Amino acid sequence: MKLVGIDIGGTKILIAKISGTGILKESINLPMSNDNYRKVLEKIIIEIKKFGNISAVGISIAGDVDGKNGILRYSPNLPKWTNVHLKKYFEKKLNVPTVVDNDANCAAYGSYIIDGQRKYKNFITVTLGTGIGGGIIINGKLYRGSTGSAGEIGHITINPDGPKCSCGNNGCLEAYIGTKGIIKIANDFGLKSKSGITPAIIADKARKGNRQAIRVYEKFSEYLAVGVGSLINIFNPDMLTFSGGVSNNWDLIEKRFFDELKKRAFKTPLEHVKIIKSKNPGNLGAIGAALLSQK
Amino acid sequence: MKLVGIDIGGTKILIAKISGTGILKESINLPMSNDNYRKVLEKIIIEIKKFGNISAVGISIAGDVDGKNGILRYSPNLPKWTNVHLKKYFEKKLNVPTVVDNDANCAAYGSYIIDGQRKYKNFITVTLGTGIGGGIIINGKLYRGSTGSAGEIGHITINPDGPKCSCGNNGCLEAYIGTKGIIKIANDFGLKSKSGITPAIIADKARKGNRQAIRVYEKFSEYLAVGVGSLINIFNPDMLTFSGGVSNNWDLIEKRFFDELKKRAFKTPLEHVKIIKSKNPGNLGAIGAALLSQK
Repeated sequence: MKLVGIDIGGTKILIAKISGTGILKESINLPMSNDNYRKVLEKIIIEIKKFGNISAVGISIAGDVDGKNGILRYSPNLPKWTNVHLKKYFEKKLNVPTVVDNDANCAAYGSYIIDGQRKYKNFITVTLGTGIGGGIIINGKLYRGSTGSAGEIGHITINPDGPKCSCGNNGCLEAYIGTKGIIKIANDFGLKSKSGITPAIIADKARKGNRQAIRVYEKFSEYLAVGVGSLINIFNPDMLTFSGGVSNNWDLIEKRFFDELKKRAFKTPLEHVKIIKSKNPGNLGAIGAALLSQK
Repeated sequence: MKLVGIDIGGTKILIAKISGTGILKESINLPMSNDNYRKVLEKIIIEIKKFGNISAVGISIAGDVDGKNGILRYSPNLPKWTNVHLKKYFEKKLNVPTVVDNDANCAAYGSYIIDGQRKYKNFITVTLGTGIGGGIIINGKLYRGSTGSAGEIGHITINPDGPKCSCGNNGCLEAYIGTKGIIKIANDFGLKSKSGITPAIIADKARKGNRQAIRVYEKFSEYLAVGVGSLINIFNPDMLTFSGGVSNNWDLIEKRFFDELKKRAFKTPLEHVKIIKSKNPGNLGAIGAALLSQK
């Protein structure tokens, strides 16, 4: 079984050959260009054809996806990509079944298999990046909700009077710990850098012992625990994993996160749930999408 | 099919004969006594036997329930009732299959059938009472979580620095809008009454035009919308209902709740979800428990 998983992001595209058990065998990165999306898709097809015979394609993409019909309705990172009939296009060009889902759902399904070996049936993946996303597995199946938007974990309100979120609400978890939120915390702590402030730069400084930078990640970890505590009390899951770029700073997050989580979550479900940073946070989208094509 | 549903509460016990489609045919109320629980259970058995032949029993009870084995581990309202093997007891005495679940799960399952006619497959019931509880139906099935504690909707943190909750955390939804929270809001607004302050007394005053009392329910409604908004963003459900004693004040809650919810929840899932006060909030526990015995 040769599957292809594609992770279409705002800056690059990962195209990967994936085994039926979720192992990444080969991969290519293409830069995302500013071209019309048809040109981009043509390039993707050329790369896939180099893999030889394949049996299915899965596509992971950030945005509002109609999973049933395989249509990308809208992506905040790709303003030119509106109402793109991805499933139809790939099935016509490659003549294999194609599934499309949003990146957080794909990451959760990938993590459920890669990190949890399908053993943890109630499973949540929280993606930590520019935005805060999430995917939910209930009883071994991806839970998409009634209109496909379940898992918007970044848009739990953790403070009704908190800062404005990109979604229009105030005090969403994402407003506190998405990239903009992290930079706001850094500004509040007076952290400055000649090369600008990003979550990665703050993490570098923290690892070098900068007290303010360490405090930024402590504050981040406390907010994260508030959101995850609520998830544990509501879902009582078997396992919860973190993916996304900012999860690479888990070494700076872990201790304060668990200290705070003990205050927030009920004892029995907290003792039960296994919480880890994904072993493969960079490729979960592509792997999960490929495996979803087998459902 | 004659089912029996029993709702064991802190002050009274409802014993009801329920049809296979969830219609309450006959019911008896017993006051909860301070006796040893064995004496109370004996009285319940005597009442059930008056119903004649029955095919199954369902028991709804507030507290920590081991649903698999039908054991009430602990109930905050019934301190003498610890590790009560309800399933075993009823099956021995009545020789019919018996199920036991916590009141919020039973209410959700009852509401799924009574209020939603099993048509709204992803379904949440929020119980508004002394505490704030919840039950979750996913794809037509009660979702209990991995150790049976899913649905603790009252223990979503809506403000990390909020008031202490009975669970030990700060700023839980329940700390704001459980009975103690409502009374705190009333105190903050300087509301006084010779007969003491309860949610029902505040509601009476509000209906008579007392401005402070109206504001208490407005504040209540805003907090409720914060919690429900998060649920909608996470679950993207088909339907959400309210049960529990305080839901009887829905006339004082509805308008402000929906105004606030529009700010909190995403547009598409909010437009999709049907939100109502349960048509039968008082009997959902008994009805839901009886119907769960048929699963």
